Amino acid sequence: MTKELRGKPVAKALLQQTEKTIEDLKKIDCYPTLAIVRVGDDESSVSYENAAIKTMQRAGIAVEPVIFKEETSSEEILQALDSLNKNTDIHGVLVMQPLPGTLSRNDVARCLDSNKDIDGLTPENLGRLVENDPIALFPSTPKAVMALLDFYDIEVEGKDVCVIGSSPVVGKPLTIMLLNREASVANVHIKTKDVKQYTRQADIVISATGAVELVTADYIKEGAVVVDVGFGYKDGKPVGDVKYDEVFAKASAVTPVPGGVGSITTAILAEQVAQAAWNQRSN
Amino acid sequence: MTKELRGKPVAKALLQQTEKTIEDLKKIDCYPTLAIVRVGDDESSVSYENAAIKTMQRAGIAVEPVIFKEETSSEEILQALDSLNKNTDIHGVLVMQPLPGTLSRNDVARCLDSNKDIDGLTPENLGRLVENDPIALFPSTPKAVMALLDFYDIEVEGKDVCVIGSSPVVGKPLTIMLLNREASVANVHIKTKDVKQYTRQADIVISATGAVELVTADYIKEGAVVVDVGFGYKDGKPVGDVKYDEVFAKASAVTPVPGGVGSITTAILAEQVAQAAWNQRSN
Repeated sequence: MTKELRGKPVAKALLQQTEKTIEDLKKIDCYPTLAIVRVGDDESSVSYENAAIKTMQRAGIAVEPVIFKEETSSEEILQALDSLNKNTDIHGVLVMQPLPGTLSRNDVARCLDSNKDIDGLTPENLGRLVENDPIALFPSTPKAVMALLDFYDIEVEGKDVCVIGSSPVVGKPLTIMLLNREASVANVHIKTKDVKQYTRQADIVISATGAVELVTADYIKEGAVVVDVGFGYKDGKPVGDVKYDEVFAKASAVTPVPGGVGSITTAILAEQVAQAAWNQRSN
Repeated sequence: MTKELRGKPVAKALLQQTEKTIEDLKKIDCYPTLAIVRVGDDESSVSYENAAIKTMQRAGIAVEPVIFKEETSSEEILQALDSLNKNTDIHGVLVMQPLPGTLSRNDVARCLDSNKDIDGLTPENLGRLVENDPIALFPSTPKAVMALLDFYDIEVEGKDVCVIGSSPVVGKPLTIMLLNREASVANVHIKTKDVKQYTRQADIVISATGAVELVTADYIKEGAVVVDVGFGYKDGKPVGDVKYDEVFAKASAVTPVPGGVGSITTAILAEQVAQAAWNQRSN
């Protein structure tokens, strides 16, 4: 029978672990605190922020919101980042995307202290990912995929894995994480001549494209594990990259959208606030 | 007819370009200088150092050798690195591998100023590779592979490329470079169930394993491009990962060993000393 790989139990287990780490830190007088920086009032940004705050509170992490009006200058925002870098009471900084105006994700990546970079966007942390450094801070979404596979005891070592999508935020770092775990990894994307040639030979297919219902039953082999990192809308309803019903009928396990990978990311962020606080303690 | 992809003309073209950049830098009173740090007298290390010095001189780059006895303490070597980091007359630092004693490649990567890291081993530079930052400094061997493909007008965008080997020095960074250029990339290795399944469907096969004559004609499809990054010995003669004669008969183009990728790396190092000096000028 096909298994539905739901994200909630994964997030719950991660949070329980993080709660313990936070308790240990408090015993040595370290009170993990996350600053959340948001510019403007983008609706999905605010709703993700609220979800993140709830998760942090459950884990015992204090949150300091740093909110700017949409018209704030880039200099002012970068100065605020600089103060947060220097503030030893702040252990992690999360900068909500998208940023309005001229400030890019890369500008933030250049200014944020890599020790507080709990969504793993700085070059330093991406490089430590390539080096397979276990205490570095990683991008939350690909790390959520790995946590999901681990939770459901899906072995990746030696498995044929196909990652669809090669964005710097998900596809590329996920490819590196899977290589670090000794999977054979094919990374395919919009320029690939024949995506199915790759996906059909894969034990695990992970799709992170945002192309609604791209992955049909035809894409996968019988019994494959299918992880859906996409998010979009069809007829007003949220859907992912995977045509769920027909893929479910052929696969051995599939993540739902919503309720799959997306419901794990804030727990990963909390885990990484704890990791960041821990790393800062030992410095 | 199968083409032999020799490294020498690639190195020559790269050096001519670098010479021009160095001349431009000298016009603005910047005299690019490379410090080469070597510990002990490992024979292959010394011979590579000599080749590097010759290439630098041809490009107009000054070289300062910093030689330590094998029994030198790690602290002393790291202190020397620190001085080189601070010395504004030094634009690049190359630390010869292997390092004897307890000092690892990662220790060096943690101490070297990423702006002077002309062999792209620091986390900062590896992360900027993931970000696809054009002015970052990259690991020389995978960059040499890309330079070779470019020189011989072998398009990678949209091509099916298989990289064999996933070391942090060659296989993994090469996979990222190819993804940055929009190739479809499969990275396979010792844990892969069926390497041939991947190599046989590839337009370009790049082998970086060090397993002598691993890649036989049976591994590749008719007309494939085969790049050999391996180096080893068989019956006292230097050979690569590729069983040359039989692969040559089936491929459209193959790199020889010796005389292929290996003969490009010092030209890449020179190019990156120029890039490093240029980046330091504009800072």
